[in-house]
Amino acid sequence: MAIEEITGRIAKDLESLKQFTATPGDGCTRLPFTPEARGAVNYLKKIMEEAGLEVREDAAGNVIGVMKGTDPDAPCIMMGSHFDSVVNGGDFDGIAGAVCAIEVARQLKEQGVTPKRDFVAVGFCDEEGMRFGTGYFGSGAMLGNRDVEYCKNFADTNGVSIYDAMKEYGLDPEKIEDAKWDVDKIGRFLELHIEQGPVLDAENIELGLVDCIVGIQRYMVTVHGRADHAGTTPMDMRMDAVDAATKVISKIPDWAREKADGTVATTGFIRTTPGGMNIVAEKVEFTVDIRSKNNDNINDIANRIRAALDREVKEMGGSYEIDTKLVITPVWLSEEMLGIMEESCKARGYSYKKLPSGAGHDALEIGQVIPTVMLFVPSKEGRSHCPVEFTKYSDFAKASVVMSELAKDLLTK
Amino acid sequence: MAIEEITGRIAKDLESLKQFTATPGDGCTRLPFTPEARGAVNYLKKIMEEAGLEVREDAAGNVIGVMKGTDPDAPCIMMGSHFDSVVNGGDFDGIAGAVCAIEVARQLKEQGVTPKRDFVAVGFCDEEGMRFGTGYFGSGAMLGNRDVEYCKNFADTNGVSIYDAMKEYGLDPEKIEDAKWDVDKIGRFLELHIEQGPVLDAENIELGLVDCIVGIQRYMVTVHGRADHAGTTPMDMRMDAVDAATKVISKIPDWAREKADGTVATTGFIRTTPGGMNIVAEKVEFTVDIRSKNNDNINDIANRIRAALDREVKEMGGSYEIDTKLVITPVWLSEEMLGIMEESCKARGYSYKKLPSGAGHDALEIGQVIPTVMLFVPSKEGRSHCPVEFTKYSDFAKASVVMSELAKDLLTK
Repeated sequence: MAIEEITGRIAKDLESLKQFTATPGDGCTRLPFTPEARGAVNYLKKIMEEAGLEVREDAAGNVIGVMKGTDPDAPCIMMGSHFDSVVNGGDFDGIAGAVCAIEVARQLKEQGVTPKRDFVAVGFCDEEGMRFGTGYFGSGAMLGNRDVEYCKNFADTNGVSIYDAMKEYGLDPEKIEDAKWDVDKIGRFLELHIEQGPVLDAENIELGLVDCIVGIQRYMVTVHGRADHAGTTPMDMRMDAVDAATKVISKIPDWAREKADGTVATTGFIRTTPGGMNIVAEKVEFTVDIRSKNNDNINDIANRIRAALDREVKEMGGSYEIDTKLVITPVWLSEEMLGIMEESCKARGYSYKKLPSGAGHDALEIGQVIPTVMLFVPSKEGRSHCPVEFTKYSDFAKASVVMSELAKDLLTK
Repeated sequence: MAIEEITGRIAKDLESLKQFTATPGDGCTRLPFTPEARGAVNYLKKIMEEAGLEVREDAAGNVIGVMKGTDPDAPCIMMGSHFDSVVNGGDFDGIAGAVCAIEVARQLKEQGVTPKRDFVAVGFCDEEGMRFGTGYFGSGAMLGNRDVEYCKNFADTNGVSIYDAMKEYGLDPEKIEDAKWDVDKIGRFLELHIEQGPVLDAENIELGLVDCIVGIQRYMVTVHGRADHAGTTPMDMRMDAVDAATKVISKIPDWAREKADGTVATTGFIRTTPGGMNIVAEKVEFTVDIRSKNNDNINDIANRIRAALDREVKEMGGSYEIDTKLVITPVWLSEEMLGIMEESCKARGYSYKKLPSGAGHDALEIGQVIPTVMLFVPSKEGRSHCPVEFTKYSDFAKASVVMSELAKDLLTK
C-alpha cells in the first residue's frame, strides 16, 4: 500500500472523528461517558469491523478489536491509545493512536500476515482524567487497578460519579472488574502518540523513538507567614510568606537546568492569601512538578527544595508543609522493540531520534508491568491540549508503517 | 482632670460606639452612608453637644463641632479622624481619633481655656474607601477635591453610586462642594490615630510622634511568557513567566532591607495564568507596594525592579508591562508642633519616639496643603483592620492630654 493511500485513510478517519466534540469550532472536548465519547467509539467500532477485527466494548468502556492469531494461548501484541480528550483540546492527542492501531491492522491484513498470536487494537477510555480528576481509567481497569469503590469515589464538577456516568452511558460499573486481563496474556504493548512537545518539530525530525517515560514527582507546598500591614510593619518585624516562597521558587528551574539531561521542573501555580496589594501575605501555596529520566535527579531537586524551604522559612520565622501529590518512577521502554523500530526507520529513510516522553500516557500505566514501546510524531510548535494542536497526516502514515513492521515482526515469531 | 477620669470618658465613648457595626460579634463594619455610619454620627453629635461645641454635619457627611475663638477671622485649629471602618475591622481605627478630638475640647473647656481662634473637632466620612474603592472622601471634600462627577463615577459592588448612597443617607450630593473650606481658614491640622503597626507595642513605648507620612508607589506588573506542557517542553525551549517573575519578586524585599531606614517593599498578590500544576505559566501578575520617608529610595527600588524585569524577561524571551497604580510623595509633618508635643511628653513623663506613618490617613490628604501633625498610640502586636485590633484606653487618654496641651498652645497664641 502506497504511503499516500495510508495517509488518505488516516486523514479520513481523523477528519471524521472531529465531529465528536462538545465544543464544535473550539477544539475537541470529548469527555468520557458522554454522547461525544459514544460517537467516537461507534466510529472506531465501524472501522475496526471494516478492517476485519472482532470488535467488543469492555466493562470499562474500552473499545477492542482483535485480529486472531493461530495460537490462542500465545500472549497478544496490543496497540492503542485513548479516544477521550481534555476540554477544548486538539484533534490528535490520543485518538490518532487509536486510529493508527486500526490502520496497522489494515496493513497487516493487506500484507497477508498470518499472526501466530492475536493483534489487539484498543481505544482506551478516559486517559486524560479531565472529567473526574483521575486518569488512565481504561488502561488501569485492564490491569485490574480499578474497582466499584473507585467508580463511586470520584465525581465530576456536577457531582456525577464515574459510577453514575457509566450507567448513564450504558455500562455496568458493578462489572468493572470484568475489564481486567490476565497480564500474562498481553505480551507487548505499543502506543503511537503525538509528542505534545516541541523537540521533533524544532529539529525537523519525522519520528521520535521513545526510550523512556519520565518519572514525575508533584508537590503542593504551603508557606505560612503572617498577614501584616504593608505600610506599617518594618521589614525586620514581618513574616512575609511571599519573600520566603519566591526565594525558593525562583531557584527551582535553575536546579533542573543544571542537570542538563532533559530534567524539567515547573511551578505552574502560585496563590497568595489574602492577596491584597497592601497586605503582607500570610500564606503562599505553590506547585512543583519535576520530571526526569533519572529518578536521582528528581529526588535531588525535591531535596534541594526542602532544604531551601527549611532555610528561607526559618529565616522568615514561619512554617511550611509539603503535600505529595504524585510520585512515579521512570519507565524504561523495550530496547528490543526500539531496535526493531530503528531498523525500520533506517530502511525506510525516515528521520528519527530517541527521546523521552515527558508526559504520562496509557503506556506509562501499562509499561509498569508489560514490555512497552512508544512512537512519537511531531507536534507543530509543541502545542497540545489546545485547538491549534497539529500533526501532518503524512507523519502519522509513516509512524503507522514503522508500527506495522514492528507488529509484523512480533506477530510472526 | 485626673488621667483615670479621662480614660473612663474615652472608654465609655468607644465602648458605646462599638454598637454601630453591621457585623456584631465579628469586628466593626461601618461603611459610609449606612445606618451604622448614621448611628456613629448621631453619637458623635451628642457628645460634641455635651462638650459645648456648635455641631453640624457638612455636605460630605463629615460631622463638625466648633469651640468658638475670640477672633472669628483667625485660622482655626482642626483636629479629627474618620468614623468609618473597613469590613470586619477594629473598634479604634479612625473613630478613636474623632472621639479624642472631642475629648480635647472637653479638656480645653475644663481648663477654662479662652481660645483666640476656633477649635474644630471633626469626624471624617469615608477615609477607608472600602465601599466605593476610593478613600479620603470627607477630608478631600473639605479641601475642595470632590465634586458631583466624582460622586457619580464610583459605585459599590451592588452598583450603588456614592451619589445615590448619599441621597439615601439624607445628604444632597449636588451640594458636595458646599463642604469645601477656604484652606486659609484652617491654620493647623492634628490627628490622633492608632499606629496600625508593631513598633510602639514591641518597644513598649506609649506615644508615637509622627514626623513623616511615607511616600507610596504601587504597581501592578504583568509578565508574559508562553503556556507549555510542563513535561514535554525542555527547559531551554520554554518561556516560563513564573521563572522570570519570581527571580524579580524574590529580590524586592532585600532591596528595601538594604536601605535600612524604614523603607518597606511588599508583593502581596501573585496570580499565575492558566495556573495548572502541569502547565508552564503564560502570565504572572504581581503587585509591588514600596513606601519610604525618602522618595529617592522609592524611586531607586522601582528602577531596580524595572532593570531586573528587563534582564529576566529578556533572558526568558517574553515581555512585561508595569501599570502604575499610585504615586504619593512623602509628607513631612510640622516640626513646630512635633516640638511642642515632645516637650509635653517629657513634662508628663510619657515615653515616646518619633516614627513615620507607613499608612495613609486623613492627615496625608490634608497635610499636602496645611501644616499637620499626627500622634500615634500603640496597636497591640501591630494588628489592625481586623476584630482583634486593640489599644489600651489609658494610652488614648495620655495621647489626648498631649494633644490638648498642643491645642491649648496653638489656640492661645
